[in-house]
Amino acid sequence: MIPRYTPAEFEELWSPATRFSTWLEVELAACEAMEAEGLVPAGIAKGIRAKQLSLDPARIEAIERTVKHDVIAFLTHVEELAGEGARWLHRGMTSSDVLDTSLAVLLVRATDLLSARLDKLCGALARRADEHRRTPMIGRSHGIAAEPITFGLALAGHLAEMKRGRARLLAARQAIAVGKIAGAVGTYAHLSPRIEERALAALGLRPETVSTQVVARDRHAELFTALSLIAAGIERLATNVRHWQRTEVREAEERFTVGQKGSSAMPHKRNPILSENLCGLARIVRAAVIPALENVPLWHERDISHSSVERMIAPDATSTLGFMLDRAAGLVEGLVVYPEKLRQNLDSTGELFFSEAVLLALVQKGRPRQAAYELVQRCAMRAIAGEGRFRDNLAADADVVALLAPDEIARCFDLDHALSHVDTIIDRALRD
Amino acid sequence: MIPRYTPAEFEELWSPATRFSTWLEVELAACEAMEAEGLVPAGIAKGIRAKQLSLDPARIEAIERTVKHDVIAFLTHVEELAGEGARWLHRGMTSSDVLDTSLAVLLVRATDLLSARLDKLCGALARRADEHRRTPMIGRSHGIAAEPITFGLALAGHLAEMKRGRARLLAARQAIAVGKIAGAVGTYAHLSPRIEERALAALGLRPETVSTQVVARDRHAELFTALSLIAAGIERLATNVRHWQRTEVREAEERFTVGQKGSSAMPHKRNPILSENLCGLARIVRAAVIPALENVPLWHERDISHSSVERMIAPDATSTLGFMLDRAAGLVEGLVVYPEKLRQNLDSTGELFFSEAVLLALVQKGRPRQAAYELVQRCAMRAIAGEGRFRDNLAADADVVALLAPDEIARCFDLDHALSHVDTIIDRALRD
Amino acid sequence: MIPRYTPAEFEELWSPATRFSTWLEVELAACEAMEAEGLVPAGIAKGIRAKQLSLDPARIEAIERTVKHDVIAFLTHVEELAGEGARWLHRGMTSSDVLDTSLAVLLVRATDLLSARLDKLCGALARRADEHRRTPMIGRSHGIAAEPITFGLALAGHLAEMKRGRARLLAARQAIAVGKIAGAVGTYAHLSPRIEERALAALGLRPETVSTQVVARDRHAELFTALSLIAAGIERLATNVRHWQRTEVREAEERFTVGQKGSSAMPHKRNPILSENLCGLARIVRAAVIPALENVPLWHERDISHSSVERMIAPDATSTLGFMLDRAAGLVEGLVVYPEKLRQNLDSTGELFFSEAVLLALVQKGRPRQAAYELVQRCAMRAIAGEGRFRDNLAADADVVALLAPDEIARCFDLDHALSHVDTIIDRALRD
Amino acid sequence: MIPRYTPAEFEELWSPATRFSTWLEVELAACEAMEAEGLVPAGIAKGIRAKQLSLDPARIEAIERTVKHDVIAFLTHVEELAGEGARWLHRGMTSSDVLDTSLAVLLVRATDLLSARLDKLCGALARRADEHRRTPMIGRSHGIAAEPITFGLALAGHLAEMKRGRARLLAARQAIAVGKIAGAVGTYAHLSPRIEERALAALGLRPETVSTQVVARDRHAELFTALSLIAAGIERLATNVRHWQRTEVREAEERFTVGQKGSSAMPHKRNPILSENLCGLARIVRAAVIPALENVPLWHERDISHSSVERMIAPDATSTLGFMLDRAAGLVEGLVVYPEKLRQNLDSTGELFFSEAVLLALVQKGRPRQAAYELVQRCAMRAIAGEGRFRDNLAADADVVALLAPDEIARCFDLDHALSHVDTIIDRALRD
Repeated sequence: MIPRYTPAEFEELWSPATRFSTWLEVELAACEAMEAEGLVPAGIAKGIRAKQLSLDPARIEAIERTVKHDVIAFLTHVEELAGEGARWLHRGMTSSDVLDTSLAVLLVRATDLLSARLDKLCGALARRADEHRRTPMIGRSHGIAAEPITFGLALAGHLAEMKRGRARLLAARQAIAVGKIAGAVGTYAHLSPRIEERALAALGLRPETVSTQVVARDRHAELFTALSLIAAGIERLATNVRHWQRTEVREAEERFTVGQKGSSAMPHKRNPILSENLCGLARIVRAAVIPALENVPLWHERDISHSSVERMIAPDATSTLGFMLDRAAGLVEGLVVYPEKLRQNLDSTGELFFSEAVLLALVQKGRPRQAAYELVQRCAMRAIAGEGRFRDNLAADADVVALLAPDEIARCFDLDHALSHVDTIIDRALRD
Repeated sequence: MIPRYTPAEFEELWSPATRFSTWLEVELAACEAMEAEGLVPAGIAKGIRAKQLSLDPARIEAIERTVKHDVIAFLTHVEELAGEGARWLHRGMTSSDVLDTSLAVLLVRATDLLSARLDKLCGALARRADEHRRTPMIGRSHGIAAEPITFGLALAGHLAEMKRGRARLLAARQAIAVGKIAGAVGTYAHLSPRIEERALAALGLRPETVSTQVVARDRHAELFTALSLIAAGIERLATNVRHWQRTEVREAEERFTVGQKGSSAMPHKRNPILSENLCGLARIVRAAVIPALENVPLWHERDISHSSVERMIAPDATSTLGFMLDRAAGLVEGLVVYPEKLRQNLDSTGELFFSEAVLLALVQKGRPRQAAYELVQRCAMRAIAGEGRFRDNLAADADVVALLAPDEIARCFDLDHALSHVDTIIDRALRD
Repeated sequence: MIPRYTPAEFEELWSPATRFSTWLEVELAACEAMEAEGLVPAGIAKGIRAKQLSLDPARIEAIERTVKHDVIAFLTHVEELAGEGARWLHRGMTSSDVLDTSLAVLLVRATDLLSARLDKLCGALARRADEHRRTPMIGRSHGIAAEPITFGLALAGHLAEMKRGRARLLAARQAIAVGKIAGAVGTYAHLSPRIEERALAALGLRPETVSTQVVARDRHAELFTALSLIAAGIERLATNVRHWQRTEVREAEERFTVGQKGSSAMPHKRNPILSENLCGLARIVRAAVIPALENVPLWHERDISHSSVERMIAPDATSTLGFMLDRAAGLVEGLVVYPEKLRQNLDSTGELFFSEAVLLALVQKGRPRQAAYELVQRCAMRAIAGEGRFRDNLAADADVVALLAPDEIARCFDLDHALSHVDTIIDRALRD
Repeated sequence: MIPRYTPAEFEELWSPATRFSTWLEVELAACEAMEAEGLVPAGIAKGIRAKQLSLDPARIEAIERTVKHDVIAFLTHVEELAGEGARWLHRGMTSSDVLDTSLAVLLVRATDLLSARLDKLCGALARRADEHRRTPMIGRSHGIAAEPITFGLALAGHLAEMKRGRARLLAARQAIAVGKIAGAVGTYAHLSPRIEERALAALGLRPETVSTQVVARDRHAELFTALSLIAAGIERLATNVRHWQRTEVREAEERFTVGQKGSSAMPHKRNPILSENLCGLARIVRAAVIPALENVPLWHERDISHSSVERMIAPDATSTLGFMLDRAAGLVEGLVVYPEKLRQNLDSTGELFFSEAVLLALVQKGRPRQAAYELVQRCAMRAIAGEGRFRDNLAADADVVALLAPDEIARCFDLDHALSHVDTIIDRALRD
């Protein structure tokens, strides 16, 4: 989480101030649940709320330096501010009741911030896919011209992938929206399932099925895998933009803002730096997955090795993905598309992409598939070598002409036919 | 996928024979769908099926060495065996139509093999959790004795985690049960969505929303993340077994079979080698996640960099996890539990785990929490240092006695009370 | 890089202020080299140095928001402060000449900070290994008591590993101490190898053999692998401390400071939290390796995808490892060792660790190895099952007694003999 | 390790037959050392060697199924074949003495196989770099045309990287050429450092400084990091080939062999499949690093979790890299380079790459850098927009003409000058 790649909302979400205020929320929710069950005198939580405590992170950290325990430091500070009533807080609870429940609250908020951004990216992709649904371009496999698609179709593929990412994020939100108020080893020794359920409900969470001292870490790991899948999808999009923008292709470009400079040495350059940046950041988000998985096998009823990891990867991965989604949405929204260049690149392939239509026509006429393949390859390879147009080579090939009449050859060279199902596909992506 | 860690069903699933027969299944399903749509003469597929082709992997590989293309080699071989009619196969299709659809069929079967194994492991965990629901043991955080739990509760936690793993596996099965019969760049240039839908339905699959030349790789990556989460859960279980079995704890042990030898040098040893092995294998399954994520950002309408990766990690990760699940189920089923040792370890903690009850009693009597904490810590630390029993130190502490009567202290030392909610929790895990 | 895990020197090293002042160092070193070669009027650099520019990071970032290019923003700001002469800076250079050379300067400094810390850790390990070179303890494989070692020997193993880590760090320092002043695509189009060599020498660096626009990223990746290997070594040490401290073992403990609190719920606990923390942080350092490797295959003469990655992992991994080394050194220095408990655990194994000596004595007397193994195992297993002491079971076993006289059995049970080579080994670790 | 990606030498190296014969080599070397020290009667090893045992892997595995211990199974089988004398083998040793020492022997052989391949790749790169040292091409940063380089220079960069890889491989060979014959917990309880040293020397190995039951795993992890760095270098090379071969660039191509087919649907395609394959395989080699690092923190004097990991990643990563090196050498050797297309792409950039020369000329004349930058950018952007050639736009720009005479502008457009240092750089790479 470095300022450069951290949206303000995430800066705020992962600040010490928010952390401590969330801890207080959790303590008060638990306290109210205990009041309802008669374990704590009624009104304690309300009394503390009324004081509108202004928690001081620096003071808490100072206490922690002595006691070497963050939650005890926090509680000590709360007692300093709230006085007498505060001694009822945290009754029968263990630190992880507060920490893990708070972490759940924060991660749920983080997923909500991410969902909103993901929706924007999907919106941008949908608009641009629709806009360019009939803008033809050459499809490429292996980086080599293959058969025609449309620019809208390419974007629709990214849209469909992002929608799958959204579904995974929602599933992960569900997995992570789980807290615990169950005591030192999850047995409710001085609490009860009813207290836990009531307290967590007030915070928008469900209870862990079986807690140890902590909420099980496979839940968190699932969240990080969901984030990494979204990041990988953005990486695919950004990789394509980088390809589209490269000098020899130049089919689409990142918006170049006024005043922007491409290179300190070469004034003429317009580089796809946003997309390159997104590719790099995807590596960062992806890198959180392994530590998150390594956090799962805690010893016995828990060890605390996961804690330092989460202090770093939870803010890092969520903020960075938040930044990526913002940037990707802007990238798609502002992407400058060059239909003429798309057409020109399509045309420069010499219509070789119609080879399959010819192949099929020959097979239809009775040629065995492999023989037909070699026939078509022969005419194509000559065209690639600069000897004649593919279409003309076919017309001049005795073996081809023996099977296909001139108009049958001509019918193979039909772009509209090649793209006749594209609308259906794009609509599928828009609708799903 | 090495023989040592590959169950027979997975060996079979990932054999060249199964691969090529699955390709043929896909080609025939597509052919039948084209017959239904009138693109191919009726009866072609039926005719080929009737010949019950006996595909020869070695022959296919020999052809591939010349043509350097596996699907073309396969089709050539099919034409060799099936003759004339075979030229209708693969009409309008691209290699990936066959390869990706086949991969989906194989991965779906792999998840089914894994699901069955996961069910067995869950069954074993459920039985043993139920069996030991009231076998008390000391819960440990940080490896340090904390408060009492039961052995069944510990197993119930693993059960709940494995059930979450099962849910993720089913979600991943859904994600991966997607094929494509959509041609070179996914546009159905010489096919149609209807053909694809019909062919895939016959194979138990759904069509990709927007194909490129391939099915999108985020689907496969999701599967590998699901596998890694299950492996991490097994790693947690195995880590705990290793702890339970260590010399100084010896609360439970892997079944030691007749004839087994623990060490070539030390005849007395009984080592938790199954569990250690499971921890190692979890690293292998986890290691598939990053390559799977790196496979997502293919260039344009696809490049083929993902292929070599999948040839290795798909068999490796699924087989290894299959082996792990078998082994883990056997481990749990055969785990030798020592209730007396569990009790002895619990008792040897000197009842310090009741300290929280005392703390709460003091707070109830009006002591501020931090003051009460220090009071209890004082009596506990003395006991740890070997000066008196914790219970007696409390009874002898003037500050404690000023607040708590002897019977009030005694009431804090109640194991049944501490474990009163355990049944509820275990039932939650069994039921969910 | 979060404050919690960042030593002050690293905070300083990776601050914007240090970054920009290092850029200026590089620009001035290059300028001086160009002056020497007559490409820039003499005295320019000296003149700028004399002004002792006070660079304002906030101002640079403000300019960057318009020009979207950090080095151009920096140069603009330098011109604002230094006036006229500054237009000679950066002559013929590209941004990466500044950025990569600066990064090399910073990473070299980071490795020096790490080396100093690693030396401290090695010093602490050496002292404690020497102190406990003759403190016997039970060695454990698989977590199961095996044969005797000494506590000093265990520490000596960690020392030897850390020394290997230091050698790797020095090799990585050598790999990374490489800059470039070679222009847009590394051809010195408007510069020369002589200028580069002179400028880099002034900064303590060597020239890249073949630059693209940047220094090759395998160098940086090597550094991150070196860091991860050191972190893994610390993880092994910390894992062992966690084992030594667990309730049932309690052979050594982290120093528990006055005022420290182990648990908010359980006042009696002393948890190995430093060691657990180190295990977690090792995951963080390790997680930098894959992104660093993914940074290597930049497109053509470079893309900028590596940049965002390095902005995060360079500070994170170096600072975190710096923190780990400090913490590990303190941990070792303060480790509280309990020789009596070590001895007690050794003794409680019932001398089973002498089984190999008996096995060898039997083989010496002519028993085939496997037969001897079964004989010893028989006596050992009875002892484990609580039937008699191992030593006595041997003396009562007719087959054993047939081969070994009572004093021959007794000679097998000699701890001094078992540890006779330990000094030699420890000296090897201290000396190397 | 799948047949498709496993060179024959690696298949052989990692076969069960080689494994068991290496175990025997180690046992015999240890036996001879013990004979020399008088611990074993002279002539035992010689006698066993004379029998030229034909070990049967299937028989060993059958025994292992009962005893569940591979080394004991092996020794039992050796006794079956060698009779009486064999009982002297393995005296005082533990399984890991055999296993780890054997693993070191095998890994050393693997690095030697890799070194030889790496030399071939370096040779090919050196030849092609030299051949094309003066073949101009456009250098690209961000995928955008930047300034001129030569094709040989690009290859020289890959050569320099591979040479660094070779140095790392040799360092890793040194780290891994370490065995142990030190008994159950590394104390030589029934052995001696002299025996170990003698036995290992006969196998080409050195002793571990401080063994536990095993050789320390940071050594193996270092090897895997070295492999991953070489793989990443190949990935960079392969990525560049993919770029060079893409339709719109077509500056170089993989050799297309007679009979090869590019696509089952599109007969005209020539795809860079070798290079794409190499990119995929790099992910596999890289994926071994994290498990190797996770293997380092074994518990106490060792646990066996590393074993299953190494059984998979050691053969996989070494064989796969061996395959990659073979393939990469062939790729470079056979790479078809198109100098005319290289020139054409260079020319089509409209000489914009000379913009920096103009910029520098303007600065030389007294223009502040940023002002000069904007001036040049103005002329360049017009050229990009299709309004005039860059060179002409400059000549027509009043502000430019005010500072630069026509011949001064012309002198900025000199390709030979731009490439004047290329020979020096390439020679550096060839020589180092």
